[in-house]
Amino acid sequence: MYLSPDAGIIGPRSLCESMATEADPDAETPDTYEQFRSHVEQLNYVGDAAGVLQWDQEVMMPDEGTPARSKQSAALSTLHHDLLTDDDVGEWLDELEDEDLDPEQQAVVREVRRQHDRAAKVPGDLVQRISEATSNALPVWKEAKADDDFDAFADTLEELIQLKREYAEAIDPDRDPYEVLFEEYEPYLGLDTAEEALENLRETLVPLIDDIKDSDAELADPFAGDTYDDDTQEELVRSALDYLGYDWDRGRLDTAPHPFSTGTQFDARVTTRFDPEDPLGALGSTIHEFGHATYTLGLPDEHYGTPLGESRDLSVHESQSRLWENHVGRSLPFWEGFAPTVEDGLGVSGSPQEFYEAANTVHPENLIRVEADELTYHMHIVLRFEIERDLIQGNLDVSEVPQVWNDKMEEYLGVRPDTDAEGCLQDIHWCHGSFGYFPTYSLGSVLAAQLYAAAEEEIDDLDAQIRDGDFEALHEWLTDNVHSHGARYETDDLIEEATGESFTADYFLEYADEKYRDLYNC
Amino acid sequence: MYLSPDAGIIGPRSLCESMATEADPDAETPDTYEQFRSHVEQLNYVGDAAGVLQWDQEVMMPDEGTPARSKQSAALSTLHHDLLTDDDVGEWLDELEDEDLDPEQQAVVREVRRQHDRAAKVPGDLVQRISEATSNALPVWKEAKADDDFDAFADTLEELIQLKREYAEAIDPDRDPYEVLFEEYEPYLGLDTAEEALENLRETLVPLIDDIKDSDAELADPFAGDTYDDDTQEELVRSALDYLGYDWDRGRLDTAPHPFSTGTQFDARVTTRFDPEDPLGALGSTIHEFGHATYTLGLPDEHYGTPLGESRDLSVHESQSRLWENHVGRSLPFWEGFAPTVEDGLGVSGSPQEFYEAANTVHPENLIRVEADELTYHMHIVLRFEIERDLIQGNLDVSEVPQVWNDKMEEYLGVRPDTDAEGCLQDIHWCHGSFGYFPTYSLGSVLAAQLYAAAEEEIDDLDAQIRDGDFEALHEWLTDNVHSHGARYETDDLIEEATGESFTADYFLEYADEKYRDLYNC
Repeated sequence: MYLSPDAGIIGPRSLCESMATEADPDAETPDTYEQFRSHVEQLNYVGDAAGVLQWDQEVMMPDEGTPARSKQSAALSTLHHDLLTDDDVGEWLDELEDEDLDPEQQAVVREVRRQHDRAAKVPGDLVQRISEATSNALPVWKEAKADDDFDAFADTLEELIQLKREYAEAIDPDRDPYEVLFEEYEPYLGLDTAEEALENLRETLVPLIDDIKDSDAELADPFAGDTYDDDTQEELVRSALDYLGYDWDRGRLDTAPHPFSTGTQFDARVTTRFDPEDPLGALGSTIHEFGHATYTLGLPDEHYGTPLGESRDLSVHESQSRLWENHVGRSLPFWEGFAPTVEDGLGVSGSPQEFYEAANTVHPENLIRVEADELTYHMHIVLRFEIERDLIQGNLDVSEVPQVWNDKMEEYLGVRPDTDAEGCLQDIHWCHGSFGYFPTYSLGSVLAAQLYAAAEEEIDDLDAQIRDGDFEALHEWLTDNVHSHGARYETDDLIEEATGESFTADYFLEYADEKYRDLYNC
Repeated sequence: MYLSPDAGIIGPRSLCESMATEADPDAETPDTYEQFRSHVEQLNYVGDAAGVLQWDQEVMMPDEGTPARSKQSAALSTLHHDLLTDDDVGEWLDELEDEDLDPEQQAVVREVRRQHDRAAKVPGDLVQRISEATSNALPVWKEAKADDDFDAFADTLEELIQLKREYAEAIDPDRDPYEVLFEEYEPYLGLDTAEEALENLRETLVPLIDDIKDSDAELADPFAGDTYDDDTQEELVRSALDYLGYDWDRGRLDTAPHPFSTGTQFDARVTTRFDPEDPLGALGSTIHEFGHATYTLGLPDEHYGTPLGESRDLSVHESQSRLWENHVGRSLPFWEGFAPTVEDGLGVSGSPQEFYEAANTVHPENLIRVEADELTYHMHIVLRFEIERDLIQGNLDVSEVPQVWNDKMEEYLGVRPDTDAEGCLQDIHWCHGSFGYFPTYSLGSVLAAQLYAAAEEEIDDLDAQIRDGDFEALHEWLTDNVHSHGARYETDDLIEEATGESFTADYFLEYADEKYRDLYNC
């Protein structure tokens, strides 16, 4: 690394002079909690540094930068792991669990305990084997997908399943391995709750989607038949971010092959991508990422570095993206307010109702999860959940995956993929060893509806505010009830605090039923 | 840090799964050198990660991201320091210094020994005090500069001098503290050599500049009287980078308040800035940074992570930027080749000779180092060197700095600053505690001339190649003779290998004398 110092600003600080966090030996010995907290902060700063490297890699890095970046990222991961599994952490946790801590401190101890135990229980060589297997799996999966050849990926998938079973067993040999893996992404809601919600979705949405398919309703599409260049679309999504209240002093928008959001409460960035024929795709995905970033930006500044300044896990994060994407961005009031900007920006004419219809068209024939509409999306998730659960629990053989996948697609959506590339090879998650991740997408949507219902209850005429482009009260409600708590509460307690109820799919199902039966007149 | 995973690419790798560098306990125990090298690589990867964070901070980070970024950068600095000063490193070094290593391994041991010893000898609390003092100094200096009030900065400067003396004493109590500090930036050339070169510059350039002032020659300026917008200038400097052979697959150009270059052999980026009235400023500074990046890109890929894959220190780095900026970018052959691009790009008409004159106009009346021309620049450096050396050696009192500064400006350049803001408060270096840094700027220019003379000797009609925009042979010569060696050789040995001679200012002085007497007809 070299920073050219010619302008006299960058260079003169050698690393040696910028070390700001050395311990001062003359200071009083801090108590255990302070030592512990300081250590936790360091490890989280390293994790966030790794996030900056990853953002750069996806958004800015030149093509041939990968070899060096891989080494840098791996070094930070190792340091993060070493700091998390440090024996001191275990000793501090043991000691602190016996002490009389305040509730915030207890929450920090609880969260670090969970992360520490999970990381410390998995032997280094297993971590290494999983890392190698997932690295090796990536090109195999890509080629299998390109060749539409599931068999070429089957052995790799089998190996990953075995490794992740071993991983789950290392963490807790006495429990369902799928449950243990699921908790990596959603630690508190419980697999039972997730299963119940997903069953609920399947039972309610399959007949609803059937009715939509049978409906004669033809939804408007003012965008059809034209193309929209990148600059025009970028201007539009920037306007949308302005409209929704994105804090540009703590964020930025760029393009990336796969939209994502990353950062901290001081700097939460979003990315998007543009398809010339589908400006609503960029708009929806930008609003989705805005929802993630808004959660991150709502975390308390003063707790940056500890779990109190970190987001709750994936279900809650996804609830924030889905709330903005669907309950705001796909609502009629939003289109009543935002339609003029779209008309001006894209040169498209349409009524708010027509834009609203275009944004909510259901496409049961679509085979690809990431292109799915708000409704059929969940059937893609239910299917993946059922298959990966059975694979990990040993109730399904890898060789059966294509057949089961296609059967379920037919059963849930009435469409059968012609190829595995458009079927069971489409997602990267399993190739990454990420079994247990998929359910959090649907849990997030379900939770979004529950939270939005609570916000509607408490905010006076939220629809009118959205129509007026006034999102202050909604931002405030979400900050007060969700964001500002960081990871202080377990997921179910957070939901109870925010909504007065346990986690439930009822709000989502009611919302979906009402909205789509109305749209499709069915 | 949160990476939104909706597109299924970014998110599914939890930190836990991406740790690629855990030790495999079943592997054979590697020998000491392998253990040592692996450790060195890790610490350099961390250093490079810190470089990515710094690039992002200067170029991409939103305004309010600083609090989190400071924590992240400090955490990486601490980890880097801990890895460098680790007791294991000292033990490995002791052991390896007794072993029969090959020359490359010996070079790695030599470089790490130097870095380790310097870092390990300085007590943590002194590092901490310097870090705090420089942090605190920054706003004091900024305000003093804004208020043109040296007295307001005097105590701070005194404190920094004391701290850096203490720092030098910790490293070697028996040597001149300024020499010890100088070696932080140029470890091998020797302060005597630097002093001799700087004296030489002063003795030769002061009369030359006097003659230029007395000359009646009026140099052309085809750019005067017009302004050039950012987009136009950016297109021009991108064309220049294309023309010179920048590898865009391993680099990128952005704007930053203070131009700099950073990166590795896989990803070496440059930045620039635009002044509407001075397109030559952006062009020169971009070519300068290109020179730095070209050095970085010429380091051997296979040695990334060890000193064999790192650049030699600041003098050599500056030689590469100055060689491209001055010997190429300010040469008549360059303008004979590049003039049409400038004419087309900026809509300016002028002959190559006129552009050449504009790029080489001497401004003795200029008070600001970073705005100085190729020639008077060195008087700015000589002055700073003499003052900071005397300050550190205790031969000059802080209160005398403004007077001495202004006297020397008058003596060397015939101009006296009206304010300290335009005088001794203009640079940030001392405020960063970077005493000993300034000389490397001039040493770099001097070395550039020596290297360029050697390249000219060995490349058949280099002028004609430059006129034709063919830089292949020059790139190859620099890669073979400088870049590919990394930090394998000590600076003086590298120069000897490349040029067949010891470091000397003769080539620069001859070049400057001939070029500027010809231009100014004096």
